[in-house]
Amino acid sequence: MTVEELARHLAVAFQEEGKREIRGIAALENAGPDELAYAEGERALSRAAVSLAGLILVPRGVTLPGRTTLAVSHPKLAFLQAAEILRPPEPQEEGVHPTAVVHAEAVLAAAVSVGPHAVIERRARVGAGTRIGAGVFLGEDAEVGSACVLYPRVTIYAGARLGNRVIIHAGAVVGSDGFGYVFADGRHHKFPQVGKVVIEDDVEIGGNTTIDRGSLGTTLIGEGTKIDNLVQIAHNVRIGRHTIIAAQTGISGSVEVGDYVVMGGQVGIGDHVRIGSRAILGGGAGVLPGKIVRPGTTVWGRPARRLNEFKRMYAHLSALPALAEKVKTLSQPSRRP
Amino acid sequence: MTVEELARHLAVAFQEEGKREIRGIAALENAGPDELAYAEGERALSRAAVSLAGLILVPRGVTLPGRTTLAVSHPKLAFLQAAEILRPPEPQEEGVHPTAVVHAEAVLAAAVSVGPHAVIERRARVGAGTRIGAGVFLGEDAEVGSACVLYPRVTIYAGARLGNRVIIHAGAVVGSDGFGYVFADGRHHKFPQVGKVVIEDDVEIGGNTTIDRGSLGTTLIGEGTKIDNLVQIAHNVRIGRHTIIAAQTGISGSVEVGDYVVMGGQVGIGDHVRIGSRAILGGGAGVLPGKIVRPGTTVWGRPARRLNEFKRMYAHLSALPALAEKVKTLSQPSRRP
Amino acid sequence: MTVEELARHLAVAFQEEGKREIRGIAALENAGPDELAYAEGERALSRAAVSLAGLILVPRGVTLPGRTTLAVSHPKLAFLQAAEILRPPEPQEEGVHPTAVVHAEAVLAAAVSVGPHAVIERRARVGAGTRIGAGVFLGEDAEVGSACVLYPRVTIYAGARLGNRVIIHAGAVVGSDGFGYVFADGRHHKFPQVGKVVIEDDVEIGGNTTIDRGSLGTTLIGEGTKIDNLVQIAHNVRIGRHTIIAAQTGISGSVEVGDYVVMGGQVGIGDHVRIGSRAILGGGAGVLPGKIVRPGTTVWGRPARRLNEFKRMYAHLSALPALAEKVKTLSQPSRRP
Repeated sequence: MTVEELARHLAVAFQEEGKREIRGIAALENAGPDELAYAEGERALSRAAVSLAGLILVPRGVTLPGRTTLAVSHPKLAFLQAAEILRPPEPQEEGVHPTAVVHAEAVLAAAVSVGPHAVIERRARVGAGTRIGAGVFLGEDAEVGSACVLYPRVTIYAGARLGNRVIIHAGAVVGSDGFGYVFADGRHHKFPQVGKVVIEDDVEIGGNTTIDRGSLGTTLIGEGTKIDNLVQIAHNVRIGRHTIIAAQTGISGSVEVGDYVVMGGQVGIGDHVRIGSRAILGGGAGVLPGKIVRPGTTVWGRPARRLNEFKRMYAHLSALPALAEKVKTLSQPSRRP
Repeated sequence: MTVEELARHLAVAFQEEGKREIRGIAALENAGPDELAYAEGERALSRAAVSLAGLILVPRGVTLPGRTTLAVSHPKLAFLQAAEILRPPEPQEEGVHPTAVVHAEAVLAAAVSVGPHAVIERRARVGAGTRIGAGVFLGEDAEVGSACVLYPRVTIYAGARLGNRVIIHAGAVVGSDGFGYVFADGRHHKFPQVGKVVIEDDVEIGGNTTIDRGSLGTTLIGEGTKIDNLVQIAHNVRIGRHTIIAAQTGISGSVEVGDYVVMGGQVGIGDHVRIGSRAILGGGAGVLPGKIVRPGTTVWGRPARRLNEFKRMYAHLSALPALAEKVKTLSQPSRRP
Repeated sequence: MTVEELARHLAVAFQEEGKREIRGIAALENAGPDELAYAEGERALSRAAVSLAGLILVPRGVTLPGRTTLAVSHPKLAFLQAAEILRPPEPQEEGVHPTAVVHAEAVLAAAVSVGPHAVIERRARVGAGTRIGAGVFLGEDAEVGSACVLYPRVTIYAGARLGNRVIIHAGAVVGSDGFGYVFADGRHHKFPQVGKVVIEDDVEIGGNTTIDRGSLGTTLIGEGTKIDNLVQIAHNVRIGRHTIIAAQTGISGSVEVGDYVVMGGQVGIGDHVRIGSRAILGGGAGVLPGKIVRPGTTVWGRPARRLNEFKRMYAHLSALPALAEKVKTLSQPSRRP
């Protein structure tokens, strides 16, 4: 595709060589003369000047003398749009691999691809254009929407429901039993884990992440929420829309999380916590059971506090040796008037 | 099943409509007129008054005027007993799926179910009534007891031994090599990881949890212990009976854990630690290598301390800005007599 | 194998019974009269005196009267060398299991073993003597070197490259998409995750660990590095050679780690951190985004500090109640002269 054509697709004007051929995308520092890169921020723009990239997406108002560029309002966003244009999804082999085991009562829509050794159980449903990877397990009555991608070895327990355009990476488990027992007679009796799990549209779930079904109610992951690798989401958790959950975070039972929340990695949230929309939880933050994190606030630390408060406390903690020294001086009788 | 029949099964008396038909279980807030719920504690009992549940399990001595109830000594426990009665385990398809690969020298007891694409290697043994899910791998000489459930994609390494009624969720790994090396000549040489792993009766293991075999000795999970998702249990760890280990907890090599211990989520335990029976480790607690947590104590924090001590320290930490201010005042010469 | 023969293999002299037959290895406390054990350190040597082991590796200069021993410079290292001699790798069934699905354009070298239900996609390459376990998935264009072991249910995404003698435990995922989005129009747009992942020679990767491919660049795990179970390694991370990463550690995007680094369990590292060679990160340490850990330093805590500094601060923290008491006393007017 030429620079001209790409500019037309993105509905922007190009600078310099419109006929140049662009074949792929790359980072600024590795891009070659037939590759597209982007530059956002001062440091990137100075590196752009010496990049070998054939075409660079730059912020509006920026020119790089002698370089072929497209000036756009949001270079990183334009970059991923261009990436989709330049790298059309490879033609997927449709159809069911002969080694897959698909129950006669399962329902597969048009243009579904089912990989080798996948298992699709009774009454499971798969929407149009969805790709079921090798060795995926789809339990009885499970539903997967259209245009989803389930990478190899994903396990979807019976009855789980996934929306459209859901992406699930290898080894993830959706719909396993929650962790609930009743203690009596010296042993733990398993509490029924018979609820639902619903994953809404446009959710992405990372590799080896686990999401339990509800015990009696429902575990819900809202539209557009993105979950990284090795995350644990317990039974009856309800997560809002467009929330970000980084790797190895653990969310205990019955937690409610709002929309547009951001959680760093290794966050831990006790049961029955409520996290308001647009709250930010710094990496490793720990929220005690039953607590409330107010909408829009940023918290950090274990136990988590408002960021300002945490920082102030932490600064005092760092100054503690000096403080102790001062108190020692003050309490020496000889130094007192 | 009618209220009358259920009451007879639980050996208790019913109040109000004995002929009412009950078909399933549900939470108090979602239950319909043909469903059973339970109410324990004041808040639940007040919600019970407005629940649509057809039948409610309540504590002895409680009556809900006009509502059909069963008064029992432990409503939550009775609820799960009733759940088992109301939801008999669905008739499992017995037999070996034609796509499963079962070695000629493997030994399968009666009424075993082996799912599609499962692999059972030489001399592996599976007890009566056990369900081996799709894509499960059972290595050479591995033993699984009777009435176990192995969900899809579980991997049991060669030689591992599981007792009876063990439940293992999707993606869990039992018997992998421990993490042990000897450093010499500028590189890490793998120490032999050839020990055993024994999972006793009635253990449940969560999704994508990993349990390493012993290096030379044995990794042991005691009877009735319940382990959540994404937990790591290293080589030579010995865990007692009826212990609870919540999600994402990590237990390092050669740790010994007693009976009836409770660990919150994301606990970390250094190697060679000893945790006494009935100890409680709060969520996120970290125990330093070689330490001892005494039986019956509750610890919290990183590094873990007795709960009282931790709380006192933490209160002082919160008061640190005020303390620093006070010291500042004290050290101002003008303020001193 | 006799004691004599083993001594010859290790090029050392034996004490006492050269003709004794040794059939296996064991820990000092469990070894029988036909087994080899090792004793290093005073405590082990005193236990060695009462061990039933048929042969004991001891440090040079040590004699155990009446016991058959081999005196070596590094008993633990000699033990693992002897273990390799005594337990030759069991003859592996070569060839491709009939249920494996190997693409016609995949390339398998000599003496490769491919287990049941493994899937090897188009143009994937497998080196000589490599064992591909049951249910392993090897994506298009993926490369695995020679003498590797991939345990069951490992997933290698398309295009990933593994060196020689790489060991990967069950359920691990290599080459999944990194966690990167661009926020615009109220939702998260997926940033291209099209980079590479390279695992060099002699790396070992634990069960259910996840390693993401680069977004545009490369995720690199250097030669001889050992990674435990349930570790998360994000996109564009570069890890040096012979580094040790214990279980449940998480490394965020674009982190650079040097050679011979040691990380304890549950370490968390923010994005763009640089960890110098031979640094040590204590268990549970957390390094803030963008920070630098200098070569050879030991850090601990969250946020991580130099070990000395952390210990001093922590001692002061423990003494905080006493300090507060002292300040209280100082500020009582009656107590002042």
